[in-house]
Amino acid sequence: MSLPEKDEYFQVHQSEGYTMELNGVEIEDTFAEAFPIKIARVLITGATKKWALVAAQEATGFGTSVIMCPAEAGIEKIVKNETPDGRPGVYIQICTFGFKALEEQLLKRLGQCVLTAPTAAMWNGLPKAEKQFDTGFKLKFFGDGFESEASIGGRKAYRIPMMQGDFIAEHSIGAQDGIAGGNFFIMADNQMAALAAAENAVDTIAQIEGTITPFPGGIVASGSKVGSINYAKFMKATTNEKYSPSIKDRIKDTNVPADVNAIYEIVINGLSTEAISKSMRAGIEAAVKIPGVKKISAGNYGGTLGPYKFNLKELF
Amino acid sequence: MSLPEKDEYFQVHQSEGYTMELNGVEIEDTFAEAFPIKIARVLITGATKKWALVAAQEATGFGTSVIMCPAEAGIEKIVKNETPDGRPGVYIQICTFGFKALEEQLLKRLGQCVLTAPTAAMWNGLPKAEKQFDTGFKLKFFGDGFESEASIGGRKAYRIPMMQGDFIAEHSIGAQDGIAGGNFFIMADNQMAALAAAENAVDTIAQIEGTITPFPGGIVASGSKVGSINYAKFMKATTNEKYSPSIKDRIKDTNVPADVNAIYEIVINGLSTEAISKSMRAGIEAAVKIPGVKKISAGNYGGTLGPYKFNLKELF
Amino acid sequence: MSLPEKDEYFQVHQSEGYTMELNGVEIEDTFAEAFPIKIARVLITGATKKWALVAAQEATGFGTSVIMCPAEAGIEKIVKNETPDGRPGVYIQICTFGFKALEEQLLKRLGQCVLTAPTAAMWNGLPKAEKQFDTGFKLKFFGDGFESEASIGGRKAYRIPMMQGDFIAEHSIGAQDGIAGGNFFIMADNQMAALAAAENAVDTIAQIEGTITPFPGGIVASGSKVGSINYAKFMKATTNEKYSPSIKDRIKDTNVPADVNAIYEIVINGLSTEAISKSMRAGIEAAVKIPGVKKISAGNYGGTLGPYKFNLKELF
Amino acid sequence: MSLPEKDEYFQVHQSEGYTMELNGVEIEDTFAEAFPIKIARVLITGATKKWALVAAQEATGFGTSVIMCPAEAGIEKIVKNETPDGRPGVYIQICTFGFKALEEQLLKRLGQCVLTAPTAAMWNGLPKAEKQFDTGFKLKFFGDGFESEASIGGRKAYRIPMMQGDFIAEHSIGAQDGIAGGNFFIMADNQMAALAAAENAVDTIAQIEGTITPFPGGIVASGSKVGSINYAKFMKATTNEKYSPSIKDRIKDTNVPADVNAIYEIVINGLSTEAISKSMRAGIEAAVKIPGVKKISAGNYGGTLGPYKFNLKELF
Repeated sequence: MSLPEKDEYFQVHQSEGYTMELNGVEIEDTFAEAFPIKIARVLITGATKKWALVAAQEATGFGTSVIMCPAEAGIEKIVKNETPDGRPGVYIQICTFGFKALEEQLLKRLGQCVLTAPTAAMWNGLPKAEKQFDTGFKLKFFGDGFESEASIGGRKAYRIPMMQGDFIAEHSIGAQDGIAGGNFFIMADNQMAALAAAENAVDTIAQIEGTITPFPGGIVASGSKVGSINYAKFMKATTNEKYSPSIKDRIKDTNVPADVNAIYEIVINGLSTEAISKSMRAGIEAAVKIPGVKKISAGNYGGTLGPYKFNLKELF
Repeated sequence: MSLPEKDEYFQVHQSEGYTMELNGVEIEDTFAEAFPIKIARVLITGATKKWALVAAQEATGFGTSVIMCPAEAGIEKIVKNETPDGRPGVYIQICTFGFKALEEQLLKRLGQCVLTAPTAAMWNGLPKAEKQFDTGFKLKFFGDGFESEASIGGRKAYRIPMMQGDFIAEHSIGAQDGIAGGNFFIMADNQMAALAAAENAVDTIAQIEGTITPFPGGIVASGSKVGSINYAKFMKATTNEKYSPSIKDRIKDTNVPADVNAIYEIVINGLSTEAISKSMRAGIEAAVKIPGVKKISAGNYGGTLGPYKFNLKELF
Repeated sequence: MSLPEKDEYFQVHQSEGYTMELNGVEIEDTFAEAFPIKIARVLITGATKKWALVAAQEATGFGTSVIMCPAEAGIEKIVKNETPDGRPGVYIQICTFGFKALEEQLLKRLGQCVLTAPTAAMWNGLPKAEKQFDTGFKLKFFGDGFESEASIGGRKAYRIPMMQGDFIAEHSIGAQDGIAGGNFFIMADNQMAALAAAENAVDTIAQIEGTITPFPGGIVASGSKVGSINYAKFMKATTNEKYSPSIKDRIKDTNVPADVNAIYEIVINGLSTEAISKSMRAGIEAAVKIPGVKKISAGNYGGTLGPYKFNLKELF
Repeated sequence: MSLPEKDEYFQVHQSEGYTMELNGVEIEDTFAEAFPIKIARVLITGATKKWALVAAQEATGFGTSVIMCPAEAGIEKIVKNETPDGRPGVYIQICTFGFKALEEQLLKRLGQCVLTAPTAAMWNGLPKAEKQFDTGFKLKFFGDGFESEASIGGRKAYRIPMMQGDFIAEHSIGAQDGIAGGNFFIMADNQMAALAAAENAVDTIAQIEGTITPFPGGIVASGSKVGSINYAKFMKATTNEKYSPSIKDRIKDTNVPADVNAIYEIVINGLSTEAISKSMRAGIEAAVKIPGVKKISAGNYGGTLGPYKFNLKELF
């Protein structure tokens, strides 16, 4: 039921400049608008993949949007043993608007959620970046003088004795300019179809280097607009009523197609426009495989807000 | 190899006032010291158990210790369908030292991590508490005038149209006085044995009503002492060197037994001393089943800090 | 703890004898037809919940239908530490048409998939049943004379030395008459909606004592009819074309409603009619919560095959 | 991206021909002995990674050892969307001693555990192999005449209408000569350390193409010897008492070192000696990272049984 009649399973139909289709799903001729952010990248290793993930999840929680979270944060990628200590690892990204806030978030999130996590160690995820924070050096003082310097896998690190045994922290954590707010919308006839498509998109993006999807499970249920119609005095961002299926009959200029009853947004932060483009493409390709997906769109502010534009058609 | 010779598998040996054993593991004659905190309790439901958990994990992340996290937070318990909307649910607790900080954390964590999460809805986890925050009422303004009031499962709630469909938020979230810092130590001959025992303890506590284990995976790798020997001018909490196995040979008055090479601490917050006692007991009972566990202890400050004392021996 | 006084979400509307609705979803006035089977019940414990589950999954795999699998098998329920050795446990059921085949399956599945599994132990899940197999006694010979008898948690067991340490096998495994083929159909407008509803149903049934859902993930994608129209000479069971949405336009007397595009069946085996009724009810209640579910039905052969009939209306 | 120039953690010390160490762990100068088997390879796709895995797990269950299981079977590798239908996929291997038994197992396991699984499709995992079974063709008759032929992703397949929608089965499933019984032993001072090391080894091998680890969770708890000392008349394989830690004091010529208290074996089947060598190497490298691991060995029968020998030293 979910498969096309023809065997050209993944064909891009780009007719005279207007309608692009992927696996029979319309790709709207629009673009995602994104903006600059500062990104620190940390490699967390653990005794097993599970324990590396436990630390990474705690450290990146409460990190969906800088609107009201102290940072945007997420898991970038799981790696096998291409790590300084040869153990399983997880790359995470932590994003804020400035380097000062970023340094504070690194200290708090690594100090409270990685140093405290069973078997975890922390490594510089951007050792060649110009900007380097001495977060590991600062954390070594937890050792109360019993810590020592160590060189592990060629990295300058500290060995901090604690109850579980030693915690290993690399001296520096690198950061760089990055991009926040890459995105696309998955529009489907049914909420569960939109959700399965979003899950597929996130699973695929999780294997791509350089990007994170910071929202819960990688998915945004509540795509918003800037400002407010009715509560303009105190609300800076409110629901995007033109993309709200349950009230499409009440909104004259709704953007919700007649056959669409649920929309999920995938928001992507990343180290480069190339990485974000790659993740947007892979995510969309994964999403359109789910039966019930009707259209792919993207969120922008007419180009007035962010300097980065990701045109959906140009991804393919 | 892991089982006792005798068939009285789970026997409590309490000899002349000094040595208690559980499954052959010494329970030290000591106590956990805990202190008061404010706790809000939220019930998050989702389309499936998975999606309720996704929202709960994001909302409780970056929440291990109020030392440098904005709150202590964790998942209390998964429930089947005894929920206002009859869907699978997860109770979470969010803890801060005062109600003002708690209200702010509720607004931020529920607004950014639950309202944004696929299929999630939020409900009052303490509807009978005296203290009630109108967090759901505040979040309804995200609906920008398109929201409406609803009564669901007897709860006063708001239906907020958004991209995925509607988000349901109960008007109020209750809070009460609670207890933070209930704890016990698991001491084992090997780090992996201590860790498996800690994992077992956390899994068991996860089924008990009223408590959370806020650290990563429910486990603390880095039990600390108040203050510092060598960095007293700027460090308020540092490693507990007397319980640090890797330096036990250098610490004259070490508390690490000769056969112990790793210690994990389980920290428990909860709604009542009864709930914490129950979780400490169940967690210890689960931990001592793992081969290699040598001793159970607990952390205190000589009774000078917290008003709550949980004597290990009295738990059984 | 804060359950609703009135349940608006989950109301049963039973009008004049014909149409029953649950949460707005039609419950068809039909019945599931089931038949007798023999069931052995085994309790598998492990060092942690994870390892108990690993053994249970291996032991119950390749066990969906006795049509071509050597047994029907599944996980019944996870238990905390109400087990003979006080460790986390998982109850499984293994089902065949006769006791002889059942004994063979027990020996093979426990000997190859539990005895070999890390940290697993095996216990009698029906110690009071009249029918007892000495599977543990037979497995003890793997110990090659180095095994010994042990009494653990009041159970007569064997301690078999092996590479990981000792394997503990209880002497006997009990079996009894049971019921196979309890079932219901979940009909939805979209495959992903039907699937999420099925997942919810299975998650709920997994917490009910006495039943299993033996198909992959607990779900049947391929509900069948007895016999064949076009391949009657060699096919004993074929697709149920009257319930096949993708060809509903070609089947004159289709049972697929116009708004239904996917149907999943949940098949339930269990120790008693009461347990199956309870699981059918809980599963249906969980399924109808998913948006897009249109109708609940059930599979029968007009009452000609099985002696057990589960009338959907009578469940509520 | 930031890998160490020199690897201090993971150094191979090969001194004068006798003692090899990896990360401080002795690699015994011995070899694994393996034997020929027939292997069929199937690619299972699903709507999401989860559902592909659900089908794969059911289809490969009850498949640890051909001693008493109808086949040895396991999950080889998860793939993103390099699949004929562009959906997430899982490669599995099914192994028996002859092609006839293999064909029967394919028909039963794919027909009962994949055709029945939600959203699953089945594809030829060895399309270039000389030996091809028409398992998909045989399964198409389940469609009872309503099935149709389809070409998807260049593969000849059948579209079988059923309750969930259509099941897609590729016409042929390929098979080839393979190798069973590649293996190594992980010896540790504590059962939980040996188990974490085994878990790490299996996680790493799961990312390598061409091999499976068919035992529960990929791990063997009960490494055996051929024949029996005390029950020779009826037992063909019994516990390997020379490698049984709990009785090492009673066995004069025990092979269990004084500091070892638990041993897990990883058994590897695969499509080629190269794939098995690669998996053995990666698995051992992952295992020796866990604190408490003391020695790596391997199982053989003195070279009398299997024609394939994997010398541990030659892997590095």
